[in-house]
Amino acid sequence: MSTGPIAVLGAGSWGTAFAKVLADAGSEVTLWARRAAVAESIAAERSNPDYLPGVPLPALRSTSDPRVALNGAEAVVLAVPSQSLRHNLTAWRNLIDPSATLISLAKGVELGTLRRMSEVIVEVLGVPESQVAVVSGPNLAKEIAAEQPTASVIACTDHDRAVAVQEACTTGYFRPYTITDVVGCELGGACKNVIALSCGMAGGLGYGDNTLATLITRGLAETSRLGVALGADPMTFAGLAGLGDLVATCASPLSRNRAFGERLGRGETVVQAQAAAHGQVAEGVKSCSAIRELAKRHDVEMPITEVVHRVCHDGFDPREMAADLIGRKTKPER
Amino acid sequence: MSTGPIAVLGAGSWGTAFAKVLADAGSEVTLWARRAAVAESIAAERSNPDYLPGVPLPALRSTSDPRVALNGAEAVVLAVPSQSLRHNLTAWRNLIDPSATLISLAKGVELGTLRRMSEVIVEVLGVPESQVAVVSGPNLAKEIAAEQPTASVIACTDHDRAVAVQEACTTGYFRPYTITDVVGCELGGACKNVIALSCGMAGGLGYGDNTLATLITRGLAETSRLGVALGADPMTFAGLAGLGDLVATCASPLSRNRAFGERLGRGETVVQAQAAAHGQVAEGVKSCSAIRELAKRHDVEMPITEVVHRVCHDGFDPREMAADLIGRKTKPER
Repeated sequence: MSTGPIAVLGAGSWGTAFAKVLADAGSEVTLWARRAAVAESIAAERSNPDYLPGVPLPALRSTSDPRVALNGAEAVVLAVPSQSLRHNLTAWRNLIDPSATLISLAKGVELGTLRRMSEVIVEVLGVPESQVAVVSGPNLAKEIAAEQPTASVIACTDHDRAVAVQEACTTGYFRPYTITDVVGCELGGACKNVIALSCGMAGGLGYGDNTLATLITRGLAETSRLGVALGADPMTFAGLAGLGDLVATCASPLSRNRAFGERLGRGETVVQAQAAAHGQVAEGVKSCSAIRELAKRHDVEMPITEVVHRVCHDGFDPREMAADLIGRKTKPER
Repeated sequence: MSTGPIAVLGAGSWGTAFAKVLADAGSEVTLWARRAAVAESIAAERSNPDYLPGVPLPALRSTSDPRVALNGAEAVVLAVPSQSLRHNLTAWRNLIDPSATLISLAKGVELGTLRRMSEVIVEVLGVPESQVAVVSGPNLAKEIAAEQPTASVIACTDHDRAVAVQEACTTGYFRPYTITDVVGCELGGACKNVIALSCGMAGGLGYGDNTLATLITRGLAETSRLGVALGADPMTFAGLAGLGDLVATCASPLSRNRAFGERLGRGETVVQAQAAAHGQVAEGVKSCSAIRELAKRHDVEMPITEVVHRVCHDGFDPREMAADLIGRKTKPER
C-alpha cells in the first residue's frame, strides 16, 4: 500500500497536514478540497493559507474534483467533518475502489444514528470493517505541519492492514503505532472534544490547573466507562489515542474546542462563540449530544458530557453548572 | 479525629496550604516551620510570605519548636522534603503520640534505601502501616491556597482512618476522595516529578503539546508498570493520584519540576538550573535515581526516567537524548 496512490478527501488543517505526512513518507498523494480556490492555492503555491498558513507543502496534487482525487486511489483518507461524512461518502460511493483501504481522520459520533465514523463508512460503502483504519492520538495539526515529532495510533481490526497504513505514513517526525481496538480509538477521539469544551468552560469560569487536571482525569474515566460498555479495550484509553489525544487537546491553546468552551465559560452564548470562531461550531458542541444519547442507551453515567450538553443545547448557564462540573460529593474515588 | 489537635510539620507551600485547609475545615492546627522567622511571620502576620505570598491564613498556631507542635497532636502531617523525612522523623520520634495518625504529604522515594515515604514512617516510628495516610492528587499548593476548588486523594490501608482524615480536611474548596492503595498513590506522586522534568526538557528543546501529551502518556505507562510490579492497583494510576497529579504538574507553569527541566532542555547544567531556582534542586532530580534503581530491581523498563537520570546525573546533553526521550521505533503500541 505504501507505493499506491492515496486520495486525501478534505483539506482542513488535519487533512492537509496528514497529506503532507503521506507525501513526505513517499506516497503519491492527491488532496481534495471542497472549495476550488483552496485546491488551486495548494496546487499553485504549495500552501494552504486558509488552514495551515505559512506551512510549505511537499509535492502533491490538489483538486476540487472528487473523481480526479479518487481515480486509481488504493487508499482513501476521509478528513471531512464527522457530521458531513455520510453525506460526502454517499456522493463519492461509486468513485471509490471497492478494495481501497479507508482511513478515517474524522472524530465524532453521528447525530441521530449514534454511529461511530468507521460504522458510517462500513454502512455507506458496504465494506467489511477490516478494510477501515482510524488515525488518532496527540495530533495537533499545526505541530505536525511544523514537523514537530509526534506519536500517533493507527487502529484497524486487520493488523496487517494497520501495519501497511503505518508504513505509508511513517516519517522522521510522525511515528504511528498500531492497535486493533477501533472502538476505543474512535471513542477516545470523539469524547476528547467534549472534555476539552468542559476544560475551556472551567478556564473561562476562572478555575486553574488543579481543576483542569481533575476534568481530564474524570473525563477520561467517563470516556473509558462508555468505551468498555461498547466493547473497547480499557487499555486504549490509557494510551496515545485516549489519554494522549485528550491531554494534547485540553492542554493546548491551539485547541478549537477548548477555546470555544472558554468563551462559554466567560458567559457567551453558543451563537456568540460561533460568531467569534468565524461561524464554526466546535466539534464537541455537536458530538456531546450524540455521546450523551449513546451513554443513556448503554446506561453509562457521563456527568461531564451531561453538563456540556446542557450548556450547549439546553441554555444552562455554566456558572450555575460549575458545582456539577467540578463535582461536589466526598466519597471513595471508585 | 476531626476535632483533635493536628500538627503540620513543614511550612513550605504545600504544608502551609494544607494547614490552611485543615484549619478552614475546623481543626485545631499547629504549623511547625524549621526557621523561627517563618513561624513568627505566620503567627504575627497570618501569612507565609516566603512560600505563599499574599495568602491570608486562618487562625492557626505556628512554632519552630517541634515539642510545641506535637504536644497533644492526634494527627501529624509530614510536609518535609522526601530526602529529609527520615532525619526529621528520627529527631521527632519521641515527641509523637504512638497512636497518632501519620499523614504524609511528602512525594518521593528515599535514596539508598529505595523506600516510599510511608515505609520510612513505619520503619522509623515503628507504627503499623494502617496508621499512615498519604495525601496526593492534582494539588498545586498555590491554587488550593487561593481556594480554587480541588479534588484530592487520601490513601490509607485502613479505610476508616482514611475517612477520618477525609472528614478532617473537607472544605468547600478541597474535596478528598478515599482509596486504600497507598503504594500506587505514593508512586504516582514520586514518579510525576520525574515525568514533569522530562516535559520541561522537551519544552526547553522546543517541542510542543503533541510531545508533552506523549510524554505524559508514556510517563504514566511506565509509572503504572513499576506500580503493578510493586503491588499497586493499576486503576490508581488512571485516577486523581496518578493521571490527575501528573497532568496538574506537567501542564502547569507553576510546577518547579517542569520549570527546572525547561532550563536543562535549554542547555543549562543542573548546577546552573539550581542557582536559578534559589539554590533548590527540583524533587525529581533526586527521585529519578531512586526510582530508576527501584525499576532495575524489579526488572521494569522506564525509558523516560532513564533519560532524566542520565541528563541530571551522568552529564548527558538533553539535545543528544531527544531521540530517546520522544521515542523512535514504529511498533504496536503495547
